[in-house]
Amino acid sequence: MVTERLQHLRALMAKNGIQAYLLPTSDFHESEYVGNYFKSRKYISGFTGSAGSVVVTQEEAGLWTDGRYFIQAARELAGSGITLYKMGEEGVPTLEEFLSDKLKEGEVLGFDGRVVKAKLGLRLREKLSQKKVSIQYDKDLVDEIWTDRPELPTAPAFLLEDKYSGKTTALKLEAVRSEMQKKDAAYHIITSLDDIAWLFNIRGGDIAYNPVILSYAVITQEKAILFLDEKKLSEEIKATLGKFGVEIRGYFEIYEFVKALPKNEKILFDTAKVNYAIYQNLGSGASVIDAPNPTVLLKAVKNSVELENLRKAHIKDGVAVTKFIHWLKKNIGKTEITEVTASDYLENCRKEQDGFIDLSFNTISAYNANAAMMHYSASEESHAVLKPEGLLLVDSGGQYYEGTTDITRTIILGEVSNEIKKHFTAVLKSMLNLADARFLYGCIGQNLDILARGPIWDMDLDYKCGTGHGVGYLLNVHEAPNGFRWKKVPERDDGCILEEGMVTTDEPGVYIEGSHGIRTENELICHKGAKNEYGQFMYFEHLTFAPIDLDAVDTSYMTKKEIDSLNRYHSEVYEKISPYLNEEEKLWLKEATRVIG
Amino acid sequence: MVTERLQHLRALMAKNGIQAYLLPTSDFHESEYVGNYFKSRKYISGFTGSAGSVVVTQEEAGLWTDGRYFIQAARELAGSGITLYKMGEEGVPTLEEFLSDKLKEGEVLGFDGRVVKAKLGLRLREKLSQKKVSIQYDKDLVDEIWTDRPELPTAPAFLLEDKYSGKTTALKLEAVRSEMQKKDAAYHIITSLDDIAWLFNIRGGDIAYNPVILSYAVITQEKAILFLDEKKLSEEIKATLGKFGVEIRGYFEIYEFVKALPKNEKILFDTAKVNYAIYQNLGSGASVIDAPNPTVLLKAVKNSVELENLRKAHIKDGVAVTKFIHWLKKNIGKTEITEVTASDYLENCRKEQDGFIDLSFNTISAYNANAAMMHYSASEESHAVLKPEGLLLVDSGGQYYEGTTDITRTIILGEVSNEIKKHFTAVLKSMLNLADARFLYGCIGQNLDILARGPIWDMDLDYKCGTGHGVGYLLNVHEAPNGFRWKKVPERDDGCILEEGMVTTDEPGVYIEGSHGIRTENELICHKGAKNEYGQFMYFEHLTFAPIDLDAVDTSYMTKKEIDSLNRYHSEVYEKISPYLNEEEKLWLKEATRVIG
Repeated sequence: MVTERLQHLRALMAKNGIQAYLLPTSDFHESEYVGNYFKSRKYISGFTGSAGSVVVTQEEAGLWTDGRYFIQAARELAGSGITLYKMGEEGVPTLEEFLSDKLKEGEVLGFDGRVVKAKLGLRLREKLSQKKVSIQYDKDLVDEIWTDRPELPTAPAFLLEDKYSGKTTALKLEAVRSEMQKKDAAYHIITSLDDIAWLFNIRGGDIAYNPVILSYAVITQEKAILFLDEKKLSEEIKATLGKFGVEIRGYFEIYEFVKALPKNEKILFDTAKVNYAIYQNLGSGASVIDAPNPTVLLKAVKNSVELENLRKAHIKDGVAVTKFIHWLKKNIGKTEITEVTASDYLENCRKEQDGFIDLSFNTISAYNANAAMMHYSASEESHAVLKPEGLLLVDSGGQYYEGTTDITRTIILGEVSNEIKKHFTAVLKSMLNLADARFLYGCIGQNLDILARGPIWDMDLDYKCGTGHGVGYLLNVHEAPNGFRWKKVPERDDGCILEEGMVTTDEPGVYIEGSHGIRTENELICHKGAKNEYGQFMYFEHLTFAPIDLDAVDTSYMTKKEIDSLNRYHSEVYEKISPYLNEEEKLWLKEATRVIG
Repeated sequence: MVTERLQHLRALMAKNGIQAYLLPTSDFHESEYVGNYFKSRKYISGFTGSAGSVVVTQEEAGLWTDGRYFIQAARELAGSGITLYKMGEEGVPTLEEFLSDKLKEGEVLGFDGRVVKAKLGLRLREKLSQKKVSIQYDKDLVDEIWTDRPELPTAPAFLLEDKYSGKTTALKLEAVRSEMQKKDAAYHIITSLDDIAWLFNIRGGDIAYNPVILSYAVITQEKAILFLDEKKLSEEIKATLGKFGVEIRGYFEIYEFVKALPKNEKILFDTAKVNYAIYQNLGSGASVIDAPNPTVLLKAVKNSVELENLRKAHIKDGVAVTKFIHWLKKNIGKTEITEVTASDYLENCRKEQDGFIDLSFNTISAYNANAAMMHYSASEESHAVLKPEGLLLVDSGGQYYEGTTDITRTIILGEVSNEIKKHFTAVLKSMLNLADARFLYGCIGQNLDILARGPIWDMDLDYKCGTGHGVGYLLNVHEAPNGFRWKKVPERDDGCILEEGMVTTDEPGVYIEGSHGIRTENELICHKGAKNEYGQFMYFEHLTFAPIDLDAVDTSYMTKKEIDSLNRYHSEVYEKISPYLNEEEKLWLKEATRVIG
């Protein structure tokens, strides 16, 4: 199938005079996850991962993806004739190096400029222009091949009440406009869907698990224009937005709108967010301020209402996860449970929680060796049946009116080896060490990452991803600009100074291909601690509460401080979660959170 | 005195039409430490620290210096009318902000362009030109005031034999030329004295403790020109340099030489190293490649001969320090010992070592509260008398043919408080945790710093400096580009990837103003460990061997891993150092390095 589609694409490329065609994983908004309409890269390559770019030439085809997907991509690409380029590995050319190497003078690189971010498009243009290679950005070639392409989504929008958002759109617009004034920007173009949803206190359902609405926004000191499919808005929403001076225009009108923007006024936008087509439509004379959207930092620092709500959401979520773990450990070996039915059961536990809206991402329910694939996805067609041995890694989360959650627990189903206990305990130490960090204001994730990664590195192992990411509020589960990562990854904007009120996951892991995968993930709120002559000290608060499986904890690997920290955490888990459990569950949780020494 | 000098300077400024005059701490080579000829900033301000810049206007005068010198500078500036600007502190304007704020349209900033690095001069020029402020860089105003100014130094040079350098000048020039070719540079200007000394395997004595020679160098593919006072070179050195195609010219001829460089050829140099006068002499049409000197990285990665020598040098140095600690602990309270006589005794212990040339910096011998000043300097006129109580911090090092050393031990002289034991133990944990790091290749100091700083931050304390710096080989005790630091300091080039063969100090501390200061410092060699699917793992080897005072170690603050690490280290200390001690010292060292639990 993939071979046929590649053939068809190559024929279209030849017809259009395009020698290389680029298919990133993106919608028109540089969203991390994309709706079905936008899954061209998957359609062409068969690779189902959430990140990766395909380049097709007449002779070759390649997929560039990151460490999370090396195992999965190798499997899914097998037989397709598409080469896997492992990003970040020694000696592997980058996508840009590949293009620059393959394309010759006078040749053409093609892509749909709406799904390529301006920054990448500009970099390619610069690099390739040295070789006299040009770019054709107005052709969505896959559209011609993809006959049963899904429609653009039409999910209705809903308003987020002040008791959930903690801040009205009026106040948010004021904050954005104040940042625009500092930069002397007359216009600000926002195309990132979570920024728009946050700013206008609206949510939708246009991307699975990400409650956003396909939209663009342009802000000036006087008005705000929202470009979206008006049918998604109820009369109430329109009235509310109207109250804040928000004007509604059609989704696709942005492209003509920006063409008409005055050349003598400064336009603020982020070339890492806005797509290449919008950038090109602004024309070469535009006065661009290329800087992060002010909404990014404003949104990442959760306000006190959001934090209070998040604590509530995480207790609900912790209750669901705790009930699930209890059920799983009670029933394993007695009734058939698969990766899929386990994940379904957990979803039902979440659905029972008041204010639950949806999952925040596709649950990862991965048994033993499957868990070594960091973003493994079980399906009806392909999944493992659980046995009363080994371990099940479950990474899951929910969308609640009170916020977004993301939690991973690795659950011991029976006997496990000493090696697994060692790895499990190391991951636990990692998670706790980072959570217990005390640090001076000014630290970025890069300063702190080794607190989590150290115990893993001590075993000559590593996890090929960051240690944690920011989390939205009833928004995307991956949110910039905060995160924990040891090495800067240019395309990931997660290296900001850790500010009070930021919420970040702490999710170290051990992944042994063919054997097992272990991850333990809590979310952390960043707080201000003591302030003295040395500066402002900072610390974290656990936001996630669910038991960590003591069946694989070997305290001989732990320091007293780590054991105390675990015991303190477990006592909080019992205190917060047990009021919502039945007697049997309560008894079980008491034991599951017992003091160890 | 300072007031008079400032008055005199202000009069000269008025005469020359200069409204603000800048006096950095520098020689013509951007050396960290400078010879007496170059101590204009000290002459004008009275501040004796090794880092800091003074700006004088008709109304105001300010000193900008970093955390190491806040206490000392406040004391030394008292009554001078010079304001202390604590660099990096909240709300303190930078020197550039100050100048930009004070100078008005049409006014002039003056400085001696030979003592201001090109990068700073260019930045000032750009910033001030917006305000139509101009720069006069050819006036050394202090020279007119400073009637008893010392002469330029005339110390003779000496050759470093291959058995010490491990690499001939021919091979080093080849490596530099290969880097020049990669950058398509026809000329390379080197003005940093340690780079020149390393490249030509020559040493001198033009800066106290830094065995360098005042010189400039220009390298092409065919030749190398050394600009220095020829009288410093013996016939043997001239012959040896001649063999490598090195041409000698007068020290000051560089300024005319660069004026004549062809405009159509690329010239490689580092604007953070080369002075503003050289940059300006190149003229506006010069084709500059602004990049680090290739010698920086080449020099920092010690070759196997250097590493073997360094191990020997550090045993000699450890023997000297161990003998000193033994003497001090034995005699304290029995005979008068002061900060100065202690430091003299230690210097004598070093002098007894074969191959000892000089100290590598002015020994810091600081008792109790004096030790809270990170770079305290006792003198004949002002020093403390030691009592059999409290602690003495001794930070010292030697220059040997086998390399440069830098070691700090804090020695307990009698009863100390539980707080001091807690702080001492925390500093020990910090030092060991960093030394015991296992990490993936690609880490920079910023990744690892928290391993040392964490135990200090856990107490809501901090040390206001980096955790460690690179060390030269019979060269400067502070050497770029490696180091440990949590927050990037733009003017410090110490954030490179930690490479195999780099030598870095590990010197956390606790400094409690008015009470005590504790620092424990070892040097570490970076090594390659396991290489596997996760990458290249790296680890450190202790290079420094001397006992760490168990009298202030409280194991209740330590993990088993930390205690084991200390015991392992101490057993190595005994093994390496005891063969060079007399029986009494040996017995004492056995006890001082006993296994604790």
